[in-house]
This record gives sequence, C-alpha cells and structure tokens, in this order.
Amino acid sequence: MRRIETQILNSLIESEKSFWELLDENKFTVKEFVAALNDLFRGGLINAREDKIYLTEKGLRQVNKTHLEFKGKICDKCEGKRIIFNGKFKEIMEDFTRITKNRPLPNANFFQGYMREQDVISRVALMHHYNDLAGKSLILIGDDDLLSVALALTDLPSRIFVLDIDVRLGEHIKGICKEYGLNIEFQQYDVSNPLPKELLSAFDVFSSEPLETLSGLKAFISRGVACLKENGVGYFGLSTAEASHRKWRAVEKMLLQMNCVITDIIRDFSRYRTLYETVNYEMFTKRLSFPVSGNPGIYWYKSSLFRFEVLGEPKPIIKPDKSIAIKYIDRRDDVTNPLLYSKY
Amino acid sequence: MRRIETQILNSLIESEKSFWELLDENKFTVKEFVAALNDLFRGGLINAREDKIYLTEKGLRQVNKTHLEFKGKICDKCEGKRIIFNGKFKEIMEDFTRITKNRPLPNANFFQGYMREQDVISRVALMHHYNDLAGKSLILIGDDDLLSVALALTDLPSRIFVLDIDVRLGEHIKGICKEYGLNIEFQQYDVSNPLPKELLSAFDVFSSEPLETLSGLKAFISRGVACLKENGVGYFGLSTAEASHRKWRAVEKMLLQMNCVITDIIRDFSRYRTLYETVNYEMFTKRLSFPVSGNPGIYWYKSSLFRFEVLGEPKPIIKPDKSIAIKYIDRRDDVTNPLLYSKY
Repeated sequence: MRRIETQILNSLIESEKSFWELLDENKFTVKEFVAALNDLFRGGLINAREDKIYLTEKGLRQVNKTHLEFKGKICDKCEGKRIIFNGKFKEIMEDFTRITKNRPLPNANFFQGYMREQDVISRVALMHHYNDLAGKSLILIGDDDLLSVALALTDLPSRIFVLDIDVRLGEHIKGICKEYGLNIEFQQYDVSNPLPKELLSAFDVFSSEPLETLSGLKAFISRGVACLKENGVGYFGLSTAEASHRKWRAVEKMLLQMNCVITDIIRDFSRYRTLYETVNYEMFTKRLSFPVSGNPGIYWYKSSLFRFEVLGEPKPIIKPDKSIAIKYIDRRDDVTNPLLYSKY
Repeated sequence: MRRIETQILNSLIESEKSFWELLDENKFTVKEFVAALNDLFRGGLINAREDKIYLTEKGLRQVNKTHLEFKGKICDKCEGKRIIFNGKFKEIMEDFTRITKNRPLPNANFFQGYMREQDVISRVALMHHYNDLAGKSLILIGDDDLLSVALALTDLPSRIFVLDIDVRLGEHIKGICKEYGLNIEFQQYDVSNPLPKELLSAFDVFSSEPLETLSGLKAFISRGVACLKENGVGYFGLSTAEASHRKWRAVEKMLLQMNCVITDIIRDFSRYRTLYETVNYEMFTKRLSFPVSGNPGIYWYKSSLFRFEVLGEPKPIIKPDKSIAIKYIDRRDDVTNPLLYSKY
C-alpha cells in the first residue's frame, strides 16, 4: 500500500473523521488525496455516512492497531511553527487584524487568498529571531497577505518595498499608510516582465508566497533573489496541497543553482481560508466518488516556510532583464484552482 | 557589520551574558563565533568581567535598542522541535533513560558524543508522526545515540539494523537486547568500505548523525540512501557548530543529486553534551582573546534535523561497491575536535 493510503487508514483507526478533518491531516497534494480516497472507497476499505468517513470491516483488517498507543503530535503551543511571540508582537497582532479588516477580496485570476493574521505575525517574529528585520531593507513580491503592513507596524525595517500585479492592492496599502502614518513603497509589477533596474541587488531580505506553477515559482523566486544584495536572505511559502514532491525538488534545485543554501523548512507554517466571498478553492470535491458536505471552517490549506541565505553573490536563473512566460495553472499537480472548473 | 557580529551585539543589549550563553544562541560555526568575539573584543565593542561578556560604551553606540521590545522566541513547549510526545512515549523515555545509563563512553577517535534522551524520543515521535515507524524496516548508520534501543522499545518497526564502526557498541546493544528481550541486528562496519550487498535497497527508513567532514557526510548519507528501497525516507542531523553554510549547501546538493527531496529542516532539534569523562570538545576556548571559565552545564552543541524522501529509485553518489577515503577532521570549519589540540 502506498504511503498516502496508509496515512488515511492509520488516521481512521483512531476514530471516524470528516472529509475536511482528513484533508487537514493530509501531507500530499489534494489531487493525490482525492485519488487515494476514491481508491480506498472503491476498494471497499472505507465508507462514508453522515459527513463521516470510517473504516469498513475490510479496512480494519488492513491496519495495525498497535501504533495507536503512541502519540507524536505537532506542538499545540506553536502549532509546529517553532516560534512564539509576545510583548509588542501581541499588540501588533491586534492592530494588524483591525487594520486589515477591509482588505480587498481575493481575485481568482491572480490565484489570491490570504493567510491567517497570526501566521503573518509569526513570520515577522521568525524574521526578527533571525535578525532579518531591524535595520533591514525588505522586498515583497506579491502581498495579498499584507505582510508589508505588519512589517511596517513594527517600525524595525529600514525600508519596505512591495511589488504586486494587482493595482487594487497598491491603492489599499497606500490608504493604510496614509491613515496610520506608515511607510511602504508600492510598484505595480508582473513577475513575467523584466525587473525594474533600480531594484536589482538593492535589498537585504526578500519574502513571497509564489504562484505554485513551476514557471511561477521560477519567476517569483528568481526575481526575489535578483533583488538581494550579497549574502541576502529569503523567505517563501510552498504548499503541499498544490505542489508535489517532484515540484519541491525542482524548487530546491533552483535555490542551490542560484547560489543559495536552504537553512529552514518549517512544515505547515501558514494556514489559509479556501472559501471567500469571491473565490471558492473547494470545487474539487466534485471529483469524489461519495458525497461530502461543506467545509465547517477548517483551514486545511497550508504552506510550508522556506528560509534561505545567498552565499556571496546572488545568481538568479532568470536574468533580471529577461521576460518569462508564466502559467497560472498546473494541471499535473493542482485541483484547487477554480478556473479548472469554469467549464462545468 | 557582519550578521554574526550583529547577532552577538543585539543579544548583549538585553543583558550581559556568559560566553556559554552567547555560544548557545549562536547560529554560525564555533570557529566563526570565536573569531567574531575576538574581533569585537579587540575593536573595543565588548569586554569581559567575572564570567560575563558585556557591551562597552562604544559597543552600545553601535546597536539599536528599538528591537528589544519585540520578542520572537523559540517555543518553550517543544523547544522548536515542532513535535511533542505523550502517552506511551513518556514511558519509553523513562525506560530508555534507565536502560542506557551505562552506555559506552564517547571515543574521540570516532568523534563520538550522544544527544539527550528527550531528543532521541522526539526524533522517534517525529518519525511516528510521518508514518515512518510502524511496520517499517529501519537502518541506522552509526548509533552512539542508541536510537536503535528507543526504536526497539516501541516495538513498532518490523526490523532494526545498526551499522557502526565501534565494536564496543555492538557488544553493548547485544547485552541490552538480551536483558530486555529486544530485537536489534548489529554489524560492525566502516562507511569508507563497500556496503555489504545484502543491505542494498533493503530498508524503508534510514537514520544517522554523520561525521561532519565533507567526505564523512558524503559517505554516511550515500550509504544510507543506498540501503533504501524505492521511495524510502531518511533522517539525519547536521550541526551549525561544525558545518558552515557552504557545507550545508554541499549536503543539500548531494541529496538532490541522489534523487531525494528535502521535506523538513528543523533547526537545533537535538542537543549534545560537549564534556564527557573521556572527551572534551571545549578546548577551543584557548583561542579566545579573553579568559573564559568552564561551562556550567549548557548544551550549546546542537544538530538540525533533515528529513528527506527518495523520489523513485535511490541514486547514491558513491557506488555501494566502491570504497571512499574519509577525513575525520575538517580544519576549515571545525574547532571543536579535541584531536586538533593534541599537540598543545
């Protein structure tokens, strides 16, 4: 039996679970998860009733109960993030939540969606722990999480520069800056275009949540690296929901090629909603062989946090003065993009 | 100012600290740390008195106090390991501590030293969390941590096989197995030699704390990968104390070349003593420009945990039937090996 199927069965020995609870525990792509569930259902190992998935008699015979006595759980204090924050960060968390309440709603054309407020602040706290904040110049490529606002509220960085394709975001950030006296520079920019020359080798730290097609990852990370000074530092998120291990490996290869060393991979650091007023990233449930009811509010979509450092000179694999064509949908890995279902 | 020096100064604004407390916070190699401290001391930015290092007036002028109000701290519940353990794991922790009390003392010729008992059990709990334990066959290359005993106590793996150069360890493990009715296979083996044929592609999971010279890392990890079946999984530790970022990058390159994807890098997962009855890994204090008193019992030597998965067929970079010459000391990165000081 494959790892993914074993994981599902092992989880179901503990107790029956809803589809969303199982999805929340899943460590593989949603596409692989849906396929595995359908296989287990068709094979008669699992069944579904009243919103719960459970092991059948046949399923029960496949699994070994001994491992139930052992509980190795992700830390409930830091949620497996390694970092916790206190003091002024708590205040900033409150301010950030209040200030960003009226953020622009996600646009599916840009595959937008924003992480929880506490995940943004945890990321800022981690940056601070690594001395990547105080007195540093930061560039963000894409910022629908509004990380720039949280950074500006600390007043620690020397400069915060946001590049985003979405003009609405620039307007919104400008409004926040005016209202709260913050200092954030914004420039509308599509990563497929050449990088504005004045941004080259100009920043200490880069941060992003890239589009997860291979061309998207290549463009976002390569542009980010090109913006870094010697020995600069980068942070970016990569999901397991949309990015297969094959793609993770390609990203890691890219980073090493660009003269970087990966210093941290913190799994499932950030969580995202998948249902917004404007966008629904849960249409893939149509592909299940059994009925599933709506998500009761589980943040199953997670992104792992990569941190890297450049060793000496950054070497972006896409030359900063070159364009690159970007695909918005990866039909091989992804089943969550609503545009995949626009014909239905 | 370089990152390492900024880190030291930033830490000292909070309060004066002992050399050992500062070393415990250090994120670079011990060699870089010692050089940075000497530079700061000679530059008149820090000074030392009665076991404490503190900022001078000149040092105080160099740093920015604002960042003090922000506390991003490593989680105190899981110590930044992400994983916590309960239930049966607690019992195993007690049994493990009791059973391993009379372990063989470290031998500096093999650069031995063992991690804390809780770090071993956390590692086992993480493996369990990833479904890498129940019903799996495990191979350990090097086992002075006696991880094999902790694994055997869970009774979850289908097979536990230990390779180690040190015959004393084989005798010791054999004795424990007899006394406590455990099942661990042992074979004496020097990783520089060709891999015994029967171990090739025979295991689900590999674990090791390699020797941290480049040739050592290459040999340990390559042998481990060669022992894995298709889609096998590996866990190994890499320190920041002895391994520079340049070396981290070389290790990451190796893994990708061997057809692996890195799924986790959890910083400072395990802590080690550095003073044993038989070995002293703290002789490098001789290189400091100011006097430092003995370590009061701080476990400053840490190892970060890498987890990887093979994508399909493992491709070890050292062919299993080939020998490789291994260096035991890396004079470029390492200052902790006592053999470096044997001429003094």
